[in-house]
Amino acid sequence: MSTQSPMQLGMVGLGRMGANIVRRLMRDGHRCVVYDLNAKAVDTLVAEGAEGAYSLEEFVQKLEKPRHIWIMVPAGTVTERTISTLSEILDPKDVIIDGGNSYYRDDIKHAEALKTKGIHFVDCGTSGGVWGLERGYCLMIGGETPVVEHLTPIFETLAPGVQSAPRTRGRSGEISSEEVGYLHCGPSGAGHFVKMVHNGIEYGMMAAFAEGFNILHSANAGKQETVADAETAPLVNPEFYRYDIDVDKVAEVWRRGSVVQSWLLDLTAEALAESPQLEEFEGRVSDSGEGRWTSIAAIDEGVPAPVLTAALYSRFSSRGLDNFANKILSAMRKGFGGHDEKK
Amino acid sequence: MSTQSPMQLGMVGLGRMGANIVRRLMRDGHRCVVYDLNAKAVDTLVAEGAEGAYSLEEFVQKLEKPRHIWIMVPAGTVTERTISTLSEILDPKDVIIDGGNSYYRDDIKHAEALKTKGIHFVDCGTSGGVWGLERGYCLMIGGETPVVEHLTPIFETLAPGVQSAPRTRGRSGEISSEEVGYLHCGPSGAGHFVKMVHNGIEYGMMAAFAEGFNILHSANAGKQETVADAETAPLVNPEFYRYDIDVDKVAEVWRRGSVVQSWLLDLTAEALAESPQLEEFEGRVSDSGEGRWTSIAAIDEGVPAPVLTAALYSRFSSRGLDNFANKILSAMRKGFGGHDEKK
Amino acid sequence: MSTQSPMQLGMVGLGRMGANIVRRLMRDGHRCVVYDLNAKAVDTLVAEGAEGAYSLEEFVQKLEKPRHIWIMVPAGTVTERTISTLSEILDPKDVIIDGGNSYYRDDIKHAEALKTKGIHFVDCGTSGGVWGLERGYCLMIGGETPVVEHLTPIFETLAPGVQSAPRTRGRSGEISSEEVGYLHCGPSGAGHFVKMVHNGIEYGMMAAFAEGFNILHSANAGKQETVADAETAPLVNPEFYRYDIDVDKVAEVWRRGSVVQSWLLDLTAEALAESPQLEEFEGRVSDSGEGRWTSIAAIDEGVPAPVLTAALYSRFSSRGLDNFANKILSAMRKGFGGHDEKK
Amino acid sequence: MSTQSPMQLGMVGLGRMGANIVRRLMRDGHRCVVYDLNAKAVDTLVAEGAEGAYSLEEFVQKLEKPRHIWIMVPAGTVTERTISTLSEILDPKDVIIDGGNSYYRDDIKHAEALKTKGIHFVDCGTSGGVWGLERGYCLMIGGETPVVEHLTPIFETLAPGVQSAPRTRGRSGEISSEEVGYLHCGPSGAGHFVKMVHNGIEYGMMAAFAEGFNILHSANAGKQETVADAETAPLVNPEFYRYDIDVDKVAEVWRRGSVVQSWLLDLTAEALAESPQLEEFEGRVSDSGEGRWTSIAAIDEGVPAPVLTAALYSRFSSRGLDNFANKILSAMRKGFGGHDEKK
Repeated sequence: MSTQSPMQLGMVGLGRMGANIVRRLMRDGHRCVVYDLNAKAVDTLVAEGAEGAYSLEEFVQKLEKPRHIWIMVPAGTVTERTISTLSEILDPKDVIIDGGNSYYRDDIKHAEALKTKGIHFVDCGTSGGVWGLERGYCLMIGGETPVVEHLTPIFETLAPGVQSAPRTRGRSGEISSEEVGYLHCGPSGAGHFVKMVHNGIEYGMMAAFAEGFNILHSANAGKQETVADAETAPLVNPEFYRYDIDVDKVAEVWRRGSVVQSWLLDLTAEALAESPQLEEFEGRVSDSGEGRWTSIAAIDEGVPAPVLTAALYSRFSSRGLDNFANKILSAMRKGFGGHDEKK
Repeated sequence: MSTQSPMQLGMVGLGRMGANIVRRLMRDGHRCVVYDLNAKAVDTLVAEGAEGAYSLEEFVQKLEKPRHIWIMVPAGTVTERTISTLSEILDPKDVIIDGGNSYYRDDIKHAEALKTKGIHFVDCGTSGGVWGLERGYCLMIGGETPVVEHLTPIFETLAPGVQSAPRTRGRSGEISSEEVGYLHCGPSGAGHFVKMVHNGIEYGMMAAFAEGFNILHSANAGKQETVADAETAPLVNPEFYRYDIDVDKVAEVWRRGSVVQSWLLDLTAEALAESPQLEEFEGRVSDSGEGRWTSIAAIDEGVPAPVLTAALYSRFSSRGLDNFANKILSAMRKGFGGHDEKK
Repeated sequence: MSTQSPMQLGMVGLGRMGANIVRRLMRDGHRCVVYDLNAKAVDTLVAEGAEGAYSLEEFVQKLEKPRHIWIMVPAGTVTERTISTLSEILDPKDVIIDGGNSYYRDDIKHAEALKTKGIHFVDCGTSGGVWGLERGYCLMIGGETPVVEHLTPIFETLAPGVQSAPRTRGRSGEISSEEVGYLHCGPSGAGHFVKMVHNGIEYGMMAAFAEGFNILHSANAGKQETVADAETAPLVNPEFYRYDIDVDKVAEVWRRGSVVQSWLLDLTAEALAESPQLEEFEGRVSDSGEGRWTSIAAIDEGVPAPVLTAALYSRFSSRGLDNFANKILSAMRKGFGGHDEKK
Repeated sequence: MSTQSPMQLGMVGLGRMGANIVRRLMRDGHRCVVYDLNAKAVDTLVAEGAEGAYSLEEFVQKLEKPRHIWIMVPAGTVTERTISTLSEILDPKDVIIDGGNSYYRDDIKHAEALKTKGIHFVDCGTSGGVWGLERGYCLMIGGETPVVEHLTPIFETLAPGVQSAPRTRGRSGEISSEEVGYLHCGPSGAGHFVKMVHNGIEYGMMAAFAEGFNILHSANAGKQETVADAETAPLVNPEFYRYDIDVDKVAEVWRRGSVVQSWLLDLTAEALAESPQLEEFEGRVSDSGEGRWTSIAAIDEGVPAPVLTAALYSRFSSRGLDNFANKILSAMRKGFGGHDEKK
């Protein structure tokens, strides 16, 4: 919670993330003007105390100068268009904050373009998902120092706060902003760069758990009958794979005292408690940009990221995007060994 | 903490883990007889209230029947030898608990061998490291049900306890043992199997963080002068890699509200708070068995574990074990392109 | 072709490989006694000049002592049983050659067991697939030196011969056996060990081609309409992915002058010439043991093999064995972000 | 060799590749004008029959219109500058061919820029390395169809020719250009795109061999003494790793009849014949762009390329670029387990 004076913030985009950010700000005394293409989303927040606008023009007029406008819309073309439109109707010294999942390279472009009009741009990687309203948001911020500092009251409110984690051993003295849950990471793009890497790590951690639980789930492989033929690798030691492991219980026990304790494990335990076999899922896993960009950054920088990229590629495979590659393999096997595909 | 009657436990091996397990047990009212090759380690615990023994024979004599003996010694030959020696001097109905990092396949062998003498065997994967004394240990247990149940007071004391994590949404009713922090995973070997996969996941998570922080650490790659020649890949977009990121601050900010919140991140933040460049480390990373065995289990079961295995292989490479492979690559490059190695 | 005196060889197992080995031997003047559970397979080779046997006993009786018996049956239990049965009816000084895809660890066991009866054992990794009759077989041999040397006329006939490849620059003097196409790699198991690694490399090379062709196949990704939503990573630069590449022509052109020239490429070119989209394949890729064992060897030895293991895991994924892992990922994504799976 | 009328070609850049391309062209009757910053390189080719130029202006004047200019200089800024300078002094209808290792995205940019001046641009991925003079070059070409067709005599001469590989089973009728060794892959950039993927595959194949030979090289791991402590994974089955494999002989034997037959294997055999332990190499492996771009293409397209990317990352690791990641791992291990790094 902020200890500083409340501010006014305009929010464009009232989806899951945008709406809750507004709510968390209002709870702490900030005034919010809200806009969304969907008028109902505006109505909802107006009912909760926000000031509503039903066009970008109206939205801009309702904001005091210099305006602080947080954009929370899908990355890519929608964000692009929103910034472009706003740049036409804003005034010098206004500030646009892109809180979405934009590519940090776009931030650099946006900051430069807006600078020619005297408009400031701040990129703000925002982690917290649907839980941010209660838990607060982890904020990774890029932009000019005075502009970022000016927005401190907003960031203080949105961040989870210093009490949300025990103090790190070795830290002493005054509380720094990163201990509250927000960090000015550097110039334009730095915030989304750090958020990108955060998501890249998230992919890796998720895959680590997913692979591990899959190994536990198949710990009974030795109980299954297998056909011995030239096409199938025999399980060399079936006697070592005769366990029926309750993966939901394992997820739960690891939540206490283990090295893999983490919020992702908590969520997994929750999902498995509800549905130990996860039948309601098909296993087609989306990826939303940052995982890709993280791997590209690793490649560009020349640092190895085998785990993060393997996690990304597994998602591609989960959606069948390895299909032509696999056909090539089957064709080669037929070519040199006369092997037919097994159904 | 246990709500049940105190028991007597014998501990063989008073290293970091064994000694603290004894301490945690004594704190909760259990009586411990302790033995270690190193007499000083015995003395220390005697001073803290344990009963000491200076030979395995003395140790066995001081324990009430049926004896409960926890072995906490290096996996492999030392554990092997200890179990073998004990099997000569124990009586039927005694129980040996292997709490070390043994290969689960050895458990199956040990359980069978001890069964012929009427001695019970329990395998207990124990996570918690040097922090277990305070935080408690996450216990993954394999063995016969009545024997495991008989040891409940011990496990209850060692486990972190139900209050150590908020209850998982979707769970209700009576508290289960996994919510206390210990789980009977199945027959012999099941405990170490689950612990093995736990460590495999740990490797993957650690690598995810390590790679991510490396990408942040090199985010200034575009600031460095590079020579343009046919041997070196030029950085295509140097303008996108001009950030000086304080990785210690990033580790800290992610501790609050982010998706990658975890104990491993807490430890990383701590290490980086103390030494942001980690100059005191060389970067030679050991691996201690479970990571290897996890990958072998995945391969045997036929389930993909690209992230976990990549994490393992990175550790091998950190110790230079890829050297001959790299020489082969350099030799090939010289062969087809006349390329000399760059120094 | 052998320049040495012809020998007699018994063949057990007349599948694709065994039958052609017999044919290649007979062409070069060796006498063959053949046996298979399937009498028709025996008949076929009898018609081509082999001596047939319709039981293992008859087979053994028809062979001159010391007998040379080549086993070419599925690895694992079938090979196991065949060796065991033969060991009952053979005489000291007889030789069993396992030419199949056995695990080299089984060779060590077999050699030891047969040694107690004075029977010799040779393991012979045999590469060449359905093309071996014409091209010859690459032979990787393990066993005692005098026994292996005694079989030289057989190996000389089966190997492709020195003329099958231009002499390696830097080699001079007498032709060595490896230049003919067979190599005594070491004691028992060494032959199958080298063959195992050969297949591991084969997996990696195959995957390299498969992935590369998949990238070419999707080089038109930027032409496709994609929906912009929070679940799907937008293609950042569609303008760079607007190529319709004829992968069959690419495979063909690479056969001449490129660095990736190889027999696997020849086979790929052949498959794509016949069916550029490979519609007749589903893309479920089997794996037959050696790929797994190679990765396990790498892990045991502590040397990194990220490429070989990634190739193996891709095959597992092609058969859907990553499914539970993917469900875990989808469950986590729903947990932290409220994301539903896309169909 | 070309069956068509000879042409005149200008060559900018007389390094290993450029000089040999000129030689191969002149051998077949084409006339070449050559230029290089290094006057001695020009002199050398003049002595072999080329027409020399000592400035780009002189070079351009000596060429008949429409000019055909092949650029063979380092990718990136040098190519950029050369094209830019030439664009100032060339005339409409002239053709620039970029035969270097340019990023295909640059081709698109160059083609567009040159188009405004009426100058044609052809990108030509050129494989063959130092062996191209004798073996011919595999050419992967992008650009406008009439322009590419106009240059056919050049491509016919440079390509290895139809006789350089046996005809692919299933192909019949007239010989296509890809069977000669050159292919018009599509519009601007398509040539370098295909060349890029070629190199990506090359990385994967090289790594497959390198990893495999490393596994063979360590097949004696079980003979070495290892210390048993909590920091080191014990070799579970030392009895299975007691082979001393002559990797040079293995490379040689695989050249005949095996599935991994390839030019890269030939080169490996050659290198190992000369130096079985490869002591003259350190194992620092460069990467020169295409491997990176291939992985980026896979990521952008959304197709998995775990093998190709693992190969790339191994090269990064060989140069120590994983160092900070490894320090993070060591720091974490110290944090949770009190483990010190082993030297």
